[in-house]
Order: sequence, then structure tokens, then C-alpha cells
Amino acid sequence: METLKGKTVSFIGLGLMGGALAMGIRKQGPDKICAFDINEEVLEDALRKEVIDWGVSEPEGIRQILGVSDLVVICLYPQLALDFILEYMEDFKENAVITDITGVKKLLVDQLRGVLREDLDLILGHPMAGSEKEGFGNADDAIFKDRNYILVPQPENKPENLAFIKEIIRNLGFVNIVETTAEVHDQKIAFTSQLCHVIASALVDSEEDLHITDYEGGSFGDLTRIAMINAGMWTELFICNKEALVDQIEKFEKSMDTMKKMIQAEDSDGLTEILSNVRKKRITMEVDRQNKTSARTQKA
Amino acid sequence: METLKGKTVSFIGLGLMGGALAMGIRKQGPDKICAFDINEEVLEDALRKEVIDWGVSEPEGIRQILGVSDLVVICLYPQLALDFILEYMEDFKENAVITDITGVKKLLVDQLRGVLREDLDLILGHPMAGSEKEGFGNADDAIFKDRNYILVPQPENKPENLAFIKEIIRNLGFVNIVETTAEVHDQKIAFTSQLCHVIASALVDSEEDLHITDYEGGSFGDLTRIAMINAGMWTELFICNKEALVDQIEKFEKSMDTMKKMIQAEDSDGLTEILSNVRKKRITMEVDRQNKTSARTQKA
Repeated sequence: METLKGKTVSFIGLGLMGGALAMGIRKQGPDKICAFDINEEVLEDALRKEVIDWGVSEPEGIRQILGVSDLVVICLYPQLALDFILEYMEDFKENAVITDITGVKKLLVDQLRGVLREDLDLILGHPMAGSEKEGFGNADDAIFKDRNYILVPQPENKPENLAFIKEIIRNLGFVNIVETTAEVHDQKIAFTSQLCHVIASALVDSEEDLHITDYEGGSFGDLTRIAMINAGMWTELFICNKEALVDQIEKFEKSMDTMKKMIQAEDSDGLTEILSNVRKKRITMEVDRQNKTSARTQKA
Repeated sequence: METLKGKTVSFIGLGLMGGALAMGIRKQGPDKICAFDINEEVLEDALRKEVIDWGVSEPEGIRQILGVSDLVVICLYPQLALDFILEYMEDFKENAVITDITGVKKLLVDQLRGVLREDLDLILGHPMAGSEKEGFGNADDAIFKDRNYILVPQPENKPENLAFIKEIIRNLGFVNIVETTAEVHDQKIAFTSQLCHVIASALVDSEEDLHITDYEGGSFGDLTRIAMINAGMWTELFICNKEALVDQIEKFEKSMDTMKKMIQAEDSDGLTEILSNVRKKRITMEVDRQNKTSARTQKA
């Protein structure tokens, strides 16, 4: 793992994801790791754990670390990530590579088109891993093992920088790197991530019994773990991706409604047919996932 | 574990659950384990693995094993379980204890009230454990560890028989034995189990992309694992518990609709408030579960 030898990497935001990424990148031997976070206790904790070498908590510090960083990893909520790039545009080191981890991509592509300093290379990315726990104190790079990483390359990205980012991602433990457009990313994520969080939240919202887990056998726990949600972040993600998400919610509502009507009508044949098809479809999806994971693991 | 010493236990149906229960009961040292299953290969497999001592596949065999069984565990779908008890009523051993594992209870209580032979003691139960895999070949009593078991005692159940069943359940690895009525059971299970299976199925049904797992980070997998569903069994469970289930589906649909409208209206404050409340509620439910598990584990 020579990719990061001699390089300085900065993390903007040292929460659960920024922290976990910094831990994973530390193992790849960069020259120096810097971080910005508004919470000084987090920086002290990260310094003590030797996850970072230099922590800053105010704008002057940001300018200093950006000036020396070959790679900047922005780990902020979507709107803040956009604001950060616009505000500190002139402070990045010449030819710096910038990447992000935000859960919506069209916002960044649309707002930064034609605006980004020409020598900078912004490679949009989305690590498909996380936790219902928040903050640097819960960060652990083990969450990346065997997960997907979505990249949203733009025509202006330099091939060598894309290769550089992919090498780092593979070294973090991700097995499946998918490349797509901002539009497709936002549409797929509306389904696999945002819709799932809306469903989990609605499910908990609809139940009043706080001792309901007395009656559960695993399904309820699995379906609602992600309802222990970072309210501010998910509100922003839902609203940033409003159109794609509402579209997915409505498709889901239609399927629910079909099943509800069949239950009401005691339509055994219809229900058995839907459930059989669903079983086949879900198994096909699972086989596709396992094939990709094992193909990538063997290659590695 | 002397509870089953000298006793003969019969399993009616040796699928995933019957098989797992037989494996767990084998460890409790009964005198003999018998089983009925229509599939002779399953019986041969169970004999070879020494899970059972005697397997039968036709009515005459059923009469023989019932005639010697102190405990009969009925592991059939709801309607078949009811039909079985009615059909073989006269064949059970005198003073036999019968128990079941079906996912709906009002059906059995309503249909058997005043009909059951007076010396027989039917103790209704529901082990809250399972697997998306089916059949005896996938049976494993490890699925019971630290799970809930719901009992639905009736006024006519003998206290010593209830104590006998509870002892067996605890020895199987279940930590939390909840006692309730058939009505409450069916209402709670409509939420924690049946609604969750409808949601998982509708979620898979609403997505056409068979490569969708390229874009998932765990949530989609967790929410849809149970969509690899036993279509026949769940169709019957949904329809048997139609009223409670449709009620739960409608409460859930109302919560989904509230959130959808807030997303459409870009109501950040409203969404953040809902998601914060949901987070608190889900954490409270989780703490309640953990307290009960640890209290019961310490007592054991």
C-alpha cells in the first residue's frame, strides 16, 4: 500500500464516517492526517488515539490544513459540504484531489458545474456503510468490510486521480466499486437507503406500545434498527432528494395497497403469487450480491 | 434438566420449526421422540441424525405415536393444526399435554372452545424465532437463543402443565416468556411480525432492478431478508389475522403518508421533530428489550 506514501490527507468533519475513514486511511501510511471539526474534544480524542496528527477548529486552521493537503475528504452534511467547497475554494493546495461522502449527488454536481477552480479535481463518492450510532466516539473502520462504494465520476476528473481514489477505497475494505451518474445515484439511493429509513421511522411512529419488543422475533428489530436515526442529517437528505424519494415512496405505497386489498378480499391465490414472485426476486438480488462480493474478494 | 425424563414427545410436522424444537428437546433427555411428517425423506434424515427415534408418515402411524405421547408438539400451519386436533381427538394418550407454535391464536381458541377432550391440556404457544430458510434440512435450535416465547394460557390449563412447558421453553434457550390473551397476541403479532413481512414483500415488489444491491449499504438487506418468504404459510397467516393486520397496515400507511407530505412540502422542522421522536421511542423499546434479556439471563 504505497498509494498514500508522502501524502497529506485532511478530513473536514470528524464524525462517525469521517472518523472511520481517517482510521482506515491511517493504516495506508500517509505522511500526515489533518482534521477540521467544530468540536475540540473530538479533535483531542482523535489526536490521543493517533488517528490524526493535526486538528483545527476554526477558519484560519482550515486554511492552513487545506494549503498542505494533497487529498481532502469532506465528511459534512450535503448543504454544508457544498458551502465548504465554495467558501474555501481559493485555499486548497494546487492540484489537490477532493472527495466527499454525501448521500445526494445532483445537488453538488449542479451547484459546482463551471464553478470549481480548474486545477482542483473533485471526485464524488458515497461509501455505502454506516451505523445507527453517531459521532467520532463510535467510529470504526470495520464497518467498511465487504461493502459497496459508489463513485460518480465527472468528465473533467483525471484518470490517475480516479485510480488513486479507487486504490484507497479498496484498501479500506470495500469490495464493490460502482460507477454511475449523479441522477442514477440519487434515484437508486432514494430506494435502497432513504425509502428504507422512511419506512423504519414510519413503522416505529405507528406503534404506541413501548414494550412491543416482548412480542418480536427478529423482524421488527431488523426493520427498525435504522430508525435510531440522525434526525438532522436524514431530514436534509430526504429534502435534498425530494423528487426521487417521493417517487419511490409512491411505488412502495402502491405495492402495499395491492397486498392490503388482497388480504381484505381473502385472495389466497393472488397473495401466494405475489409472495412467491417476491421470494424469487429477492433471492435473485441476493445471488447477484454474493457473486459480486466473491468475485471481488477473489481478485483482491 | 429432569423435566422430560421418562417422557415420550411427539412432533407433528418436522419442518424448520418442528425440526429445531425436536433438536432442542433431544438435549433435554426425553425417553423417546416420535414424529409425523408426510415427507419420508425428512423422517429418514431425522432418524439418521438421531433427532427422532420413530417416524411415521400416515394416519395409522399418527394414532400409534399419539397413543404413547405425554407431550405432543403440533408444528403445522394454523388451519392444519386445528384440523389435526379435531381429527385425532380420540387418539391422544390420557392426560396428554398438547402445545402448538402457530402464528395466530384466536382461530384455535374460538374453534376448540368446549370441543377439546376433557383430560387433554392444550397450551397455546408461539416461539418468536425463525429463519428465511425452510424445511428440516435447515433446522437448528440455535435460533432460539435469547428470543421471546409467547404463551396464551386458558383458564382450563393445569398449573403444573404450564410450569412443565415453561421449563422446557427455558431449556431451549428462550429468555423472555410472555403470557397474554389470544386477542392481544394476534394484535401484537400483526404488528411485529405480519406487518413487517408485508412491508418487506412490498419493498421488493416495488423495485424492478435485479442489480439493486450494488447500491445498498445494509438497510435494504436488513429490511428485505424476510421477503424470502414461505408464500403459502404467510398467505394463510395474513388471512387468518386479517382484521388486526389490516388495522396495523393502515396505521403504518398513515405514518408514511404524514412523512411523505412533509418531504413534499420541504417541512424540515416537522420532519426533524418526527425523526427525533422516533429515535427516542426506538431507543426506549431497545432498552426495554435489553433489560428483560439481561434480567432473565442473570436469573437463569
